[in-house]
Amino acid sequence: MTPTTELQNNIASMAKRAQVASRSLASISSEKKNAILHRMAILLDEQRQFIEKENKKDLIAGKEKGLNNAMLDRLELSDYVMESMIKGLHEVRVLPDPVGEVSTMRRRPNGMSVGRMRVPLGVIAMIYESRPNVTVDAAALCLKAGNAVMLRGGSEAIHSNMALAKVLQQSLELEGINPDAIQIVPVTDRQAITVMLAQEDFIDLVIPRGGEGLIRFVSENSKIPVLKHYKGVCHIFVDSQADIEKAIPIIINSKTQRPGVCNALEGLLIHQDITREFLPLISNHLQQAGVRLLGCDKCLEIAPDMQPAAESDWGREFLDLVLCVKIVCDFEEAKAYIERYGSRHTESIVTEDYSMAQRFINEIDASAVMINASTRFNDGGELGLGTEIGISTTKLHAYGPMGLEELTTRKFIVYGQGQVRS
Amino acid sequence: MTPTTELQNNIASMAKRAQVASRSLASISSEKKNAILHRMAILLDEQRQFIEKENKKDLIAGKEKGLNNAMLDRLELSDYVMESMIKGLHEVRVLPDPVGEVSTMRRRPNGMSVGRMRVPLGVIAMIYESRPNVTVDAAALCLKAGNAVMLRGGSEAIHSNMALAKVLQQSLELEGINPDAIQIVPVTDRQAITVMLAQEDFIDLVIPRGGEGLIRFVSENSKIPVLKHYKGVCHIFVDSQADIEKAIPIIINSKTQRPGVCNALEGLLIHQDITREFLPLISNHLQQAGVRLLGCDKCLEIAPDMQPAAESDWGREFLDLVLCVKIVCDFEEAKAYIERYGSRHTESIVTEDYSMAQRFINEIDASAVMINASTRFNDGGELGLGTEIGISTTKLHAYGPMGLEELTTRKFIVYGQGQVRS
Repeated sequence: MTPTTELQNNIASMAKRAQVASRSLASISSEKKNAILHRMAILLDEQRQFIEKENKKDLIAGKEKGLNNAMLDRLELSDYVMESMIKGLHEVRVLPDPVGEVSTMRRRPNGMSVGRMRVPLGVIAMIYESRPNVTVDAAALCLKAGNAVMLRGGSEAIHSNMALAKVLQQSLELEGINPDAIQIVPVTDRQAITVMLAQEDFIDLVIPRGGEGLIRFVSENSKIPVLKHYKGVCHIFVDSQADIEKAIPIIINSKTQRPGVCNALEGLLIHQDITREFLPLISNHLQQAGVRLLGCDKCLEIAPDMQPAAESDWGREFLDLVLCVKIVCDFEEAKAYIERYGSRHTESIVTEDYSMAQRFINEIDASAVMINASTRFNDGGELGLGTEIGISTTKLHAYGPMGLEELTTRKFIVYGQGQVRS
Repeated sequence: MTPTTELQNNIASMAKRAQVASRSLASISSEKKNAILHRMAILLDEQRQFIEKENKKDLIAGKEKGLNNAMLDRLELSDYVMESMIKGLHEVRVLPDPVGEVSTMRRRPNGMSVGRMRVPLGVIAMIYESRPNVTVDAAALCLKAGNAVMLRGGSEAIHSNMALAKVLQQSLELEGINPDAIQIVPVTDRQAITVMLAQEDFIDLVIPRGGEGLIRFVSENSKIPVLKHYKGVCHIFVDSQADIEKAIPIIINSKTQRPGVCNALEGLLIHQDITREFLPLISNHLQQAGVRLLGCDKCLEIAPDMQPAAESDWGREFLDLVLCVKIVCDFEEAKAYIERYGSRHTESIVTEDYSMAQRFINEIDASAVMINASTRFNDGGELGLGTEIGISTTKLHAYGPMGLEELTTRKFIVYGQGQVRS
């Protein structure tokens, strides 16, 4: 179905206004941006009743639509969620402002000084599914990095998102900033997305957050660069020289601490030389933690209580208490397995062998490569970015968690004294 | 017309082999890469006769097709072009290898050390028009940054490109490296491009170089990220506090040193306060240099020998000895003009006013923003990157000239001691 001219005009007009707003945002001071974030935190707190009332509408509609309890939970702006949004605003407020940073200026032989200055990207489109708190988190990060943002949340959360956006826009207005810097697309069907994805003259970056279907849809239809991650199929390779005392808690933590997220462990590779000692031990620990184990043929010989893994289980993102286990001959086999089945998200090795650790760090291709640490650490906050707007598993522009810096780019700046090119 | 299955299979197979080759390239030493570049320089020199013979075929075919002299010139692998390709290989050889660089490792509160390591992008597709020397330049840069490359040149240069690629592949083989790391697509129609642009599972980045039509075609049809620049509409703003002694040579150099390139000047903005003094002077200099001037109404009052600019002349990329001249009231008007008509390529101000210089540097949005310098300096070599593979005027991944660093990305690396997430 072709989008109506009205829809096209409306969204194009929103995007155009976002671009205008982004131009004034690009050069406002950090102080001003922090004042806006502070104002947002205060207004969100003050307008809880209004937000709760609007959120109720979504919850009632969700129940009528037959959403399950987990989905309704994600939709609810409970006191706890409200508090965490407000806390999030303050956390972004105190982060250093990346805009204007010039890391090095170098003098050229002709006397010109050349550097690169961080500048905002311009207009960012966020396309996401149910959780309405993303509205506030994403708006705060985009604003701090000097970008305007167009937010398109899911239909289930439309009243909540509109209410939150209204409060955020009020904050901008009270601080004398063009409220078009934060806009919410009021149409929640896929047509609206298609129209957004065609605004390449006004929007600089699209970040989809949600299921693989949404992300594929966005990246297949976008004329604008997309930062995305499809899935997190993370592995741990337990090397022959692993310290088993470290391996067990790392594996348990990676698999069970929060099995439904992208940096949870989905595949365990064990070096054949330690299998007899290690496999019974870890399988016992994992099973006690409620994890169902799917093993390769060699595994089943040693641990016959495991279930055999089907071919389709290798490389599968279970997002559940299920784990694939495979015995490998050496690093080369582990590497080949990860290349074939991994999703370039997070890969970790457990080893005390210096050379093996170095090879793993250097040769494994993933957005985060770790030695003796839980895969759950692949997260903007945990890796020191302060916070994140998502994780990229493609290599252009950003690879891994994206913080404020990844919402900017660098332009060249040249201080001359009349130089001309000969 | 739908591409044949055979074409699709051939190109998919090339891309797949390029990905395999890229994986071994990613971890070879700088020494090895430099040895390959050295070998390439020697073989190119040794095999001049073969290359010239193949190049002749293209030149003859080009004449028969009726290519004009300028196009035949660009096609010819003269001794001078051969020398400059060989020199280019040595220049890339001595550049520092960006791969493996970890600029900072930081200790997290839990004791993990976290850093970001530069790694190759993987497989790069270059799509370019006639000049066959791009084949060697691009292959050298991609190789040094650890990437495999698929090259698709124009039909006019097909014999030259195949010959050059053969020599480059020989060099790889002699150094024991998989020759699939440098491949040339033997089909030169647009169908081949369309098929390449669908290989998103194997190719990580597409760089088109050529006319605006080619670049639009690539970016509209690509499922892979594209680094591009459409055009260079560069401006100089002569502020009221400009040093006229600097302004004149900067403007003459920007406009006339090489008018056919993307960093040449296309629009001159003059502050109204100095127009009466400056306009007759600069228009005299420019006209003496053979530049045809197209002015705004106010210009024509002062310099009636100018031609009036048509509305379509503002923001036009002339690539010729033609220049638009406009009188503006102040910085704000200059900025608004640049936002509307510029192409985010290069913008320069001539001023001695400190605050004005700072505003220009901070507020103007372009891949290179300059004070008192010729726009012609927006070039990888001139800005200190050593060399460049192109200039990006979009903001994702790279903005401005792209050198070796822009052909890489950064992954997170984590050195732990058994940490788990709580």
